[in-house]
Amino acid sequence: MRTVQKYGGTSVADAERIRHVAGRVARRAGGGDEVVVVVSAMGNRTDELIDLALSVAPDPDARELDQLLATGEHMSAALLAMALKAMGREAVGLTGSQAGIHARALHGAGRIERIEAERIEAELEAGRIPIVAGFQGVTEASDFVTLGRGASDLTAVALGVALGADRCETYKDVEGVHTADPRAVPSARRLADLHYDEMLEMATQGSRVMHNRAVELAAHHDLPILVASSMVEAPGTLIHGGPRMEERNRVRGVVDDHDIAKVTLRAVPDERGVAARIFEPLAEAGVSVDTIVQNASARERTDLTFTLARADLRRAEALMERISASVGASGYVADTDLGKVSIVGAGIQSAPGYAARMFRALADAGVNIELITTSEIRITCIVRDDRVGDAMNALHAAFGLDRPA
Amino acid sequence: MRTVQKYGGTSVADAERIRHVAGRVARRAGGGDEVVVVVSAMGNRTDELIDLALSVAPDPDARELDQLLATGEHMSAALLAMALKAMGREAVGLTGSQAGIHARALHGAGRIERIEAERIEAELEAGRIPIVAGFQGVTEASDFVTLGRGASDLTAVALGVALGADRCETYKDVEGVHTADPRAVPSARRLADLHYDEMLEMATQGSRVMHNRAVELAAHHDLPILVASSMVEAPGTLIHGGPRMEERNRVRGVVDDHDIAKVTLRAVPDERGVAARIFEPLAEAGVSVDTIVQNASARERTDLTFTLARADLRRAEALMERISASVGASGYVADTDLGKVSIVGAGIQSAPGYAARMFRALADAGVNIELITTSEIRITCIVRDDRVGDAMNALHAAFGLDRPA
Repeated sequence: MRTVQKYGGTSVADAERIRHVAGRVARRAGGGDEVVVVVSAMGNRTDELIDLALSVAPDPDARELDQLLATGEHMSAALLAMALKAMGREAVGLTGSQAGIHARALHGAGRIERIEAERIEAELEAGRIPIVAGFQGVTEASDFVTLGRGASDLTAVALGVALGADRCETYKDVEGVHTADPRAVPSARRLADLHYDEMLEMATQGSRVMHNRAVELAAHHDLPILVASSMVEAPGTLIHGGPRMEERNRVRGVVDDHDIAKVTLRAVPDERGVAARIFEPLAEAGVSVDTIVQNASARERTDLTFTLARADLRRAEALMERISASVGASGYVADTDLGKVSIVGAGIQSAPGYAARMFRALADAGVNIELITTSEIRITCIVRDDRVGDAMNALHAAFGLDRPA
Repeated sequence: MRTVQKYGGTSVADAERIRHVAGRVARRAGGGDEVVVVVSAMGNRTDELIDLALSVAPDPDARELDQLLATGEHMSAALLAMALKAMGREAVGLTGSQAGIHARALHGAGRIERIEAERIEAELEAGRIPIVAGFQGVTEASDFVTLGRGASDLTAVALGVALGADRCETYKDVEGVHTADPRAVPSARRLADLHYDEMLEMATQGSRVMHNRAVELAAHHDLPILVASSMVEAPGTLIHGGPRMEERNRVRGVVDDHDIAKVTLRAVPDERGVAARIFEPLAEAGVSVDTIVQNASARERTDLTFTLARADLRRAEALMERISASVGASGYVADTDLGKVSIVGAGIQSAPGYAARMFRALADAGVNIELITTSEIRITCIVRDDRVGDAMNALHAAFGLDRPA
């Protein structure tokens, strides 16, 4: 069996934890499995490097920031390989470049284009455990490019696909996917399994557990992902493609997200091509827009609202004056300090009553809803960020998630 | 004019100093010079990374340690490039690999094999200042290899040669080369210039100012090196190839070195090929042997003593039992806590009286001499490490170095 294991930043936060992870990897490899390991930067290392960059330059150049941030994972990979060798296991730490992870040069938001796995295959062939720096790839120009926050999950799944792994295991500081974030909802329970689609909605809506592009990629290639704790031996949550979940027809979890900003363009002319003229420049600037809501038209003009990560707001605002003028809007307003709560479960949108129950539960908890969006298997409300905790607990109770299924 | 500038760890120790260096580089490039910059790791970063490695593995694997240590210079290069860009100067931070510095895979003690300067030339052509991570190269297998402590000087000179630079400038926390280390000898004076040969003896004998392989390489290609302070505007010391210094016939400086260990092989049979059988295995293990002294033969057997850096002693001792047996010696003893003092100056060995004056000065200062070695332009005494300071001051005064030449 060939497995790609991924260990997150908390799991490799210090020397003791790195040795602990080395012990786990060594035991697995000792059992005869072929193991490839992906690691994140140690603890808060990425944030420390960003702070260092900001102390040198107020708006650090994106290419140089990527060169800097990539070192965080290089360190973890080298250290874990050392720890394994100290235990008598052959291992080799690899940068994203050495591991053959080629990515498009959109700095800070790179996309994996292809994986040339010859080096990893050769290391496995030679009996060495490859330890790969997550979160990064190399461009055609041989520069490092990072893949976005939390993208070490994506590195692991992409390697799993490229190497034909049987499954991908991501080890975190949580014991799996829960019905809600246990920090927000004390009565949250671990889910034993989850369909890719359900996990995707959980991830997109802000579960800190798995990176959404990683789940998308796993779903596309039907590569099962185990989410489990690196600290304790526990079964975790298996994310997989079957059996079909549509028949379950119930809420499987509630998900919160924070640090959301909202931008509303006022009185946008209701013309063909307007949306493209708004969102193309944002996409080119690497701003990832989440929810888009267009209010009902009044006198051929309409308000258009979209949400985005608060961290992207400055980049978006730098473009909004020009965008507003280019589409003939009367101006724009930005709002920060928003959050999201979502209920997720296959079939819930097509079944009657879930939305109404959600809105009722929020009303009873005294939470105002600012925006509503839905998908096949999710209903999301944007609320003030400081009300998200109350909203989560109210929804968790209202849909009976604290009781075993 | 094309210049390679190198900034050491103290010069880029924190964000403020990095911005200061960026200002210096920007001014020089603004004057129309083509500038390529080499940087060391920030402050004590290399030592911190070594400590981190030791906390994970008691005897860190050399290949992984190199992968880890290389990140120190990657960080500095990215940060300095950011700082320059924040000042409106185009710049690009490059790892040793991206800069095309190819080196032999002797981890921890790599040797530069060739520099493929296409990327650097292209960046210069595009008007960008290349900021190159010092101290490292890339192997044929695409692994990072470090070039030995202080080897960022070597990176700078090698780049200067490869790029056909007019000169190399190394900026340090000292104002140039002095008649003695000012920390050991308060009356030490800065030398305005120095011949490569003299600098080489100073460097080999432990001056912390310049890396010896860097001076050798500069001498071989006649690339002048300016050694100056990155903190203050001062003329520094120019190391160059002419005029010939042999006629000077005087002591130009005294040099100290610390952390020396000594190994003596007892009763080595006085046979052809013995020295090779002793020193080949040490060289293969990357142990750099310094002074070798073979005592007069007694009954066809002789004691053979060599000195080495104390840091290499463990690696050497791992081989000594086997070496001792292979040459039929009666055993070996190791001694640490030694230091060196040397007097350096073209022609001093061929002129009478310098050695006698040196030994007299040390005797008057109450310093015992454990070993003596000499070269064309240098006389060195090995003494107890805690006596080096007194020895330095005695020699500096005895040869009149505190008075202007």
